Parts: sequence; structure tokens; C-alpha cells
Amino acid sequence: MGKQAIGVVGLAVMGRNLALNIESRGHAVSVFNRTREKTDELIAEFPDRKLVPTFTLEEFVNSLEKPRRILMMVKAGEGTDATIASLQPLLDKGDILIDGGNTHFTDTIRRNQELAKSGLHFIGTGVSGGEEGALKGPSIMPGGQREAYDLVAPILTEIAAKAPDGEPCVAYMGADGAGHFVKMVHNGIEYGDMQLIAESYAVLKQVLGLSNQELGAVYTEWNKGELDSYLIEITSKIFDKKDEETGKDLVDIIMDRAAQKGTGKWTSQNALDLGAPLPLITEAVFARVLSSLKDQRVAASKVLEGPAAKPFSGDRAAFIESVRRALYFSKVISYAQGFAQLRAASDEYKWDLDYGTIAKIFRAGCIIRARFLQKITDAYSKDKQIANLLLDPYFRDIAANYQGALRDVVIAATTAGVPVPAFSSAIAYFDGYRSARLPANLVQAQRDFFGAHTFERLDKPGSFHANWS
Amino acid sequence: MGKQAIGVVGLAVMGRNLALNIESRGHAVSVFNRTREKTDELIAEFPDRKLVPTFTLEEFVNSLEKPRRILMMVKAGEGTDATIASLQPLLDKGDILIDGGNTHFTDTIRRNQELAKSGLHFIGTGVSGGEEGALKGPSIMPGGQREAYDLVAPILTEIAAKAPDGEPCVAYMGADGAGHFVKMVHNGIEYGDMQLIAESYAVLKQVLGLSNQELGAVYTEWNKGELDSYLIEITSKIFDKKDEETGKDLVDIIMDRAAQKGTGKWTSQNALDLGAPLPLITEAVFARVLSSLKDQRVAASKVLEGPAAKPFSGDRAAFIESVRRALYFSKVISYAQGFAQLRAASDEYKWDLDYGTIAKIFRAGCIIRARFLQKITDAYSKDKQIANLLLDPYFRDIAANYQGALRDVVIAATTAGVPVPAFSSAIAYFDGYRSARLPANLVQAQRDFFGAHTFERLDKPGSFHANWS
Repeated sequence: MGKQAIGVVGLAVMGRNLALNIESRGHAVSVFNRTREKTDELIAEFPDRKLVPTFTLEEFVNSLEKPRRILMMVKAGEGTDATIASLQPLLDKGDILIDGGNTHFTDTIRRNQELAKSGLHFIGTGVSGGEEGALKGPSIMPGGQREAYDLVAPILTEIAAKAPDGEPCVAYMGADGAGHFVKMVHNGIEYGDMQLIAESYAVLKQVLGLSNQELGAVYTEWNKGELDSYLIEITSKIFDKKDEETGKDLVDIIMDRAAQKGTGKWTSQNALDLGAPLPLITEAVFARVLSSLKDQRVAASKVLEGPAAKPFSGDRAAFIESVRRALYFSKVISYAQGFAQLRAASDEYKWDLDYGTIAKIFRAGCIIRARFLQKITDAYSKDKQIANLLLDPYFRDIAANYQGALRDVVIAATTAGVPVPAFSSAIAYFDGYRSARLPANLVQAQRDFFGAHTFERLDKPGSFHANWS
Repeated sequence: MGKQAIGVVGLAVMGRNLALNIESRGHAVSVFNRTREKTDELIAEFPDRKLVPTFTLEEFVNSLEKPRRILMMVKAGEGTDATIASLQPLLDKGDILIDGGNTHFTDTIRRNQELAKSGLHFIGTGVSGGEEGALKGPSIMPGGQREAYDLVAPILTEIAAKAPDGEPCVAYMGADGAGHFVKMVHNGIEYGDMQLIAESYAVLKQVLGLSNQELGAVYTEWNKGELDSYLIEITSKIFDKKDEETGKDLVDIIMDRAAQKGTGKWTSQNALDLGAPLPLITEAVFARVLSSLKDQRVAASKVLEGPAAKPFSGDRAAFIESVRRALYFSKVISYAQGFAQLRAASDEYKWDLDYGTIAKIFRAGCIIRARFLQKITDAYSKDKQIANLLLDPYFRDIAANYQGALRDVVIAATTAGVPVPAFSSAIAYFDGYRSARLPANLVQAQRDFFGAHTFERLDKPGSFHANWS
């Protein structure tokens, strides 16, 4: 029997769907799972596919062509370390382990360096698109040894999502942890996008009193323009969905307690470590946390009053357009922050990230796929080293034309008592970023006053201390 | 020669000042420094004080009464580990090591557990108040073995700052890392306070056009009321200070690039780990980071335009009062978030923190000392388990009476293009916390749509998945 070009370890839904995706491109795939039931189930369900079941790691490893290509889809953390420890004695120099799990990039850096000592290649790759993406075409963000990537690139290219222009959504991100880092920031951006859409929903519902039917129509309309994206598309569909049990609108029955798996948190924590301002995504993470305190909120709602409700008296269509502009401009600001974080990371971890390519591979397969990403690619193709996307002519024009709408929406929400932490954070960041002078001189004066921490001066270089008292 | 009740290792400014403080209460103090110059300098400068110089760690350890009390004031991190490693072989069971450095609480937990295996006690203590506080009376936040605390409590009580009612600003915080944790949150709160004051300055200067002289008078006046605090006091003095070289107001010459030592960042990162909403302090940390990007901001200010400047047309005195109220209410919100984080930490790390006592020991010695802290102590003495300070009657009334002013200030700043990330975050948190229903139902619908992550329902318990497409 011939050997396979690739094998998959870990046959939970993501691993199994990726195996099926690879097989569907004409490759026989060795498969292995720690417990044999999942392997048996997979083979029983797809008896006619070229999936080669193996039941020991030795059998699995021996079934692969050299250099071996092994895609691990196991539980991130200890699961990954345990799988590597079991496989490592069976492998030969030049073999390639690929971790497609939801791994923190610092773990990937560590594993890449450790395995390199034994001559093994290690690729950490982001895989975005969920179960369906894994099966039909995800966005793939691999990092690790360049020569190892080249050996797996043909298969990854085949299974990746295809952008509207036909380009596959996969590219080499950089050394060691670069792929998992880009995936982490992708997820942080996803948190920001979802919170911004949620705030637009809250404003339209609470300030204008739109019905779910009207909301569905608004998002359907928005999805035809510059906001065209997967998340806006599914949002429009959500408002149309009826609960099968009660017949009511399902969205009204769903508990307002947002869960999370931690990648948004990682993005914020890393931005704090890098010293890269990421307030919008961080507000989105905290908004999910606050939403989870449902019992406290219900109790607080009986004690803490807000402003008296007033019926909206302005032009409703004009306000809806303001919310659309506020959403688009805030999204621009969020991506400007996220891509500035990528840039800070590229410098810190020596990755030489290609920001335009990153935006390109987000265009299909993943949750944040959107027409607007092409504008980011365009911006970086004009100026690869642009310090912040807001400085690009297209985004600068959006800022000029849409900031008034964002201000209006923040003001309307603040007046009405509707919480818009991400919208508010967006305009505060924009106004801070475009301020040649911020009040941080007072902060430095205070620090020098109470702690002799010294300050710089505007009029000459150096470090100074004043005798304050 | 008799033995000393306590010794200090590390004679940089904090260690030396704490040694002098202890000596000033009538105790002879053994002192040791890794390089002998600092020891010689200290003895030469204070020949008549009961400081006992030692020049080897053996000599130092042998000069101390048993159980030995050793206060380490060395560079946090590797310095602390190295000092412990050198001391440990020389110590006996029951001896007490005290780390007064700026240590991350997880390091303190680790060291406490490791040393306990050898029968050594380890106290990690926050020491707040800078150089002057160390010399004259800091706020002290010790954590570790209770029985070890009891053996050092008399000396710590003598050297601590005294609150206006005479109570010493020191108390046992809890096991292992509790003291360093409380100090970390103290520092995070300090970041929030300073950013809020900076935003009040920016609004008064840019919206109303107040001169430095007028600003000094405003903060002097505010310091007489409920904002009475060390930071407002020094702020008022900062606006009066002239640059000795140019004769200009010094505040206008100081570079607007705020530096940081990382404890604010730690606080935010821990809040993200705990799932405790801490948006205001986190915005303050990111505001410092953004301020540090001075070159980018200057470049951006030439490209990104804001709203056209309009002269203020309202009642100036009324607006100044609105800014005062916005500042006070935002401060309340920041402390509500910080103390909710303490509560989450107390549950997570099993510390049984006493929140009222924590507010008490902040009343003197430390940077955030303020009249308002008594209100926090009062709130916890009425209800030790209150979920959030905003629910306490005093703070609830502040919310009711001052939220209008905070909304007005956010609106005025947003209209004028003045960045107020912390003020904006404050009102968004308040409106979120008092919302029985948030738009997180849409987030959960999206997550179930694209990732089958399931949702809860309002009408019955359980976990549900809808067939969206």
C-alpha cells in the first residue's frame, strides 16, 4: 500500500472536517485519534473517501511519505504538548508538525524552538472559518520555518477559501509564532466587529425604537454597500429568524450573556505588553464580561436610574445613515488599531509581517471577511510602512466624512443612556491620535511631583526634575 | 554587641529611607547592600543613627534576633530571586523574609509556597508613598502567613502613615500574594485617577479656554470639597509652578509623553484574566501609551482634521461645576471597578480580602489618598458583600445627581473633538451596568450562527442551538 502525503491527528469536528477537505482535493489522508471510536465513526460515515485509518501512532507515522506532514487538531495547551511528546520519538529530521489548534503564539514560539533542536519543523497555523470553513475552505495563517511551509503550501493552498478574485486565502505569515499571532489578532478584531454591530443594534432599537423586522431590513440594506461582510449578512438574517417553539423572534429570546473563549482577551493582554493602543477591542472584551454579569445588572437596573426616555424627534432616515457611518468609521478605527498592533508585534518578534497580504487572506473563509478588507490591502500596497491606516487617503476621507456621524451617535446614545463603549472609545482614540498635544504633560508633572520620575521638555532634549514644593 | 530586631537588604533610595524610618522609631537596624559603597555612604551620611552596617550576608544574618525579620528592598524579579537564593541557606525555620519591592503578585505566591517548604515565612508587601512616604510613613499592604505578619506588625505599624483619625495605614491583607495584589490594584486606580484629572484639564483648557492661573484656582477650590485628595492638591500646585529657566509656566513646557512602569498594565491584564470589567483603568493605560506616540500624533494632526473650533457659549461657572461632578462620578466608577476586581480576586485566589480595611489604609501615605476613601469604608461597613460600590446609597445618590454632568461633559468634549477616553468609558460602564438587557443577545446569536457555540434562553434554562440557515 502506498504512503499518504499528509496525516491528521485529532478527529474532533475541526480535524475531521479538515481531513475531509484535504481528501476532497484528491489526496489520501491518514487519520488518527487518541480514542479509536472517533476514527471508526469517521470511516463508517465516509466509507468511500480516501481516508486511511490508523490505530497506533507508529502505524500512523509509518503510513506517511517523508518528509512527513502531520496536521495536529487537538486540544490547545496540554493536549498539544502531549501529542508532540508522543510523536517526537517516532519522527525523523525534516518531518513537519503542523499545529492547527487555537494556540497562544508564545507556546508556538516555544515549541518551534524546542523541536528545531531535534531537526523537526513546526508550523503553527491559524485556521479560521469554524466547522464549515474547515470543511469547505478556511482562511489559513501559517507561521514557522519557511522551508517547511513551502513543503505544505500546495495542500494548504488547495484547501483554503478562495477570495472573490480567486486568490486562495493562505500565505506564509512569518517565523515561529507569527501565524498564531495573526489568528489571535483576527479574533480580537472579530470581537470588535461584533461589539460594534451590537451597539448599532442597541442604538437603533433603543433610540429609534426599530422593530426586529425593520432592523433586519436595515442590515440587509447595509450589506449592499461598503459594510458588505459576513457578520452584517448573518446579522440581517438573525432578525428574521423565528423561534420554532414559541413563534416569537428568536433574537428576543436569546439570553444577553456573551460568552468567550479567551482569544480576545489574549489580544488585549498582548497589546498592553507591546504598548500598542488597542482600546476598542479591549472595550469589546470587557463588554462581553459585563454582559455575563446578568444577575448583577438586573439587580442594578432596579437601583440605578438613567435619563428619562424621550421620543426621537429628528429625521429617522438620516439617523439610521448616521449609525451606518458610525459603524463603518468605528470599524476602520478598530482595524487601524489591530494592524498597528501587528506592526508593533512584527518589530518586537522580528517577523516582517506583510500587512497587505494579511488583509488579503481575511477576504474569504473567515468570520471577519468583508469587502472593506480590500481597502486595507490597497493602503499597504501604496505604502507598506504606513504608521496607521487612518493616514491612508481612503481612510482619511472616511474619517473626514464620517466623524460627524460617529460624534452624533455617541452623543445620542450618551444622552439616552444607551451604553456604547466601543463607539465612544473609537472617537476618543481618533481624537487622541490626531492630537499633537495631549494632557499627558500634566501626568508627567504629577509623576515628577510625587515620585521624582523626571520629565522631558518640549524645548530641548534630556530628562529633567523640578523642585515642586 | 546586641542583635537587631530587623534588617534591611538593598539600600537604594526606598530601602535606605525605610531603614531610616524604622530607626527613627527607636529600633537599631542591620543594613546590607550587594555593593558596599551604598552601605558606607549611608553610614557616613547618618553617623549618629542606630544603623548597623554589615558587609557579608553571613554577618547580616548573624546580626539579627531570631526569628529573623529581613526586609528586602531589591530590584523586583531576578534581583529578588537572587537575594532569596543567597539568604535561604543562612536562615532558620521560622525566619521571615519580607519583599517590599514592586513585585507581580504571582511571583509572590510562587516564592511564598517555595519558601514554606523550608519552614521559612515570606511576606510580600506593597509599600506606597514613594521616597518621602518610605522615610516619613508609607501606606503598607502586607500579605503572607498570618503568624509571620503578627511578628512584624508592631514595627510596620510604627512606620506606617497615620490617617487623619490617627489610625496607622497598615493591615494584614491575606495569604501569599494578597499584599502585592492590593498594591497592584492601588496603582491601577492611580492611573485612572491621573487620567481623569488630565481629561478634566483638557476639557477646561480646550472647551473653556482656561488659563493655567485659572486652572490652578479651579483645582485649589475643588480640593476643598469632596474631591479633596493628594492628586488634586498637587495638580493645583503644578499650574502655579514657573520654569526656572524661561520663566514660563512649567506645565506648558513639559513633554506630553506619559511614561509608565507597568503596574497599570498588570492590573488590566489581571482584570482580563479574572473576567472583571476594568475598562476605565485600561483606557487610562492605553491613553498613556497613545501619548507616548508623540511623533505619530504630530504627523497625524497635520492629516486628520477634527471639528471646527467654536467659542463656548454657555454658562462657564456651571460648566466648570459639571466638569467637577463628571470627575467625581467617574472616580467613583473607577473605584467601583477596581474594588469589584479585588472581590473577584479574593474569590479566585481565596484571600478573604477586607475591602473596607483596604480603603482605610489608602487614606494616608499613598498617592491616591483622598477624603472620598472614607465613603468606601463606610459602604463596606454597611454591607461587607456589596456586589458593586455603585449600589451603596451614598454612591447611588452621586450617580443620580452627577450622571447628567458626566453626560454633558462627554457630549461637550465629543462635540469639540477633545479626547476623553476615561470619561466616555465611565458613562458607558455605568449605562451598561444598570442595563437589565444588553445587546449581547445579538452577539450570542452571531456566535451560534457561525460557530454553533449555542446560546441560553431567557425563558428556560439550558443550552440551545438554532438551525440558522
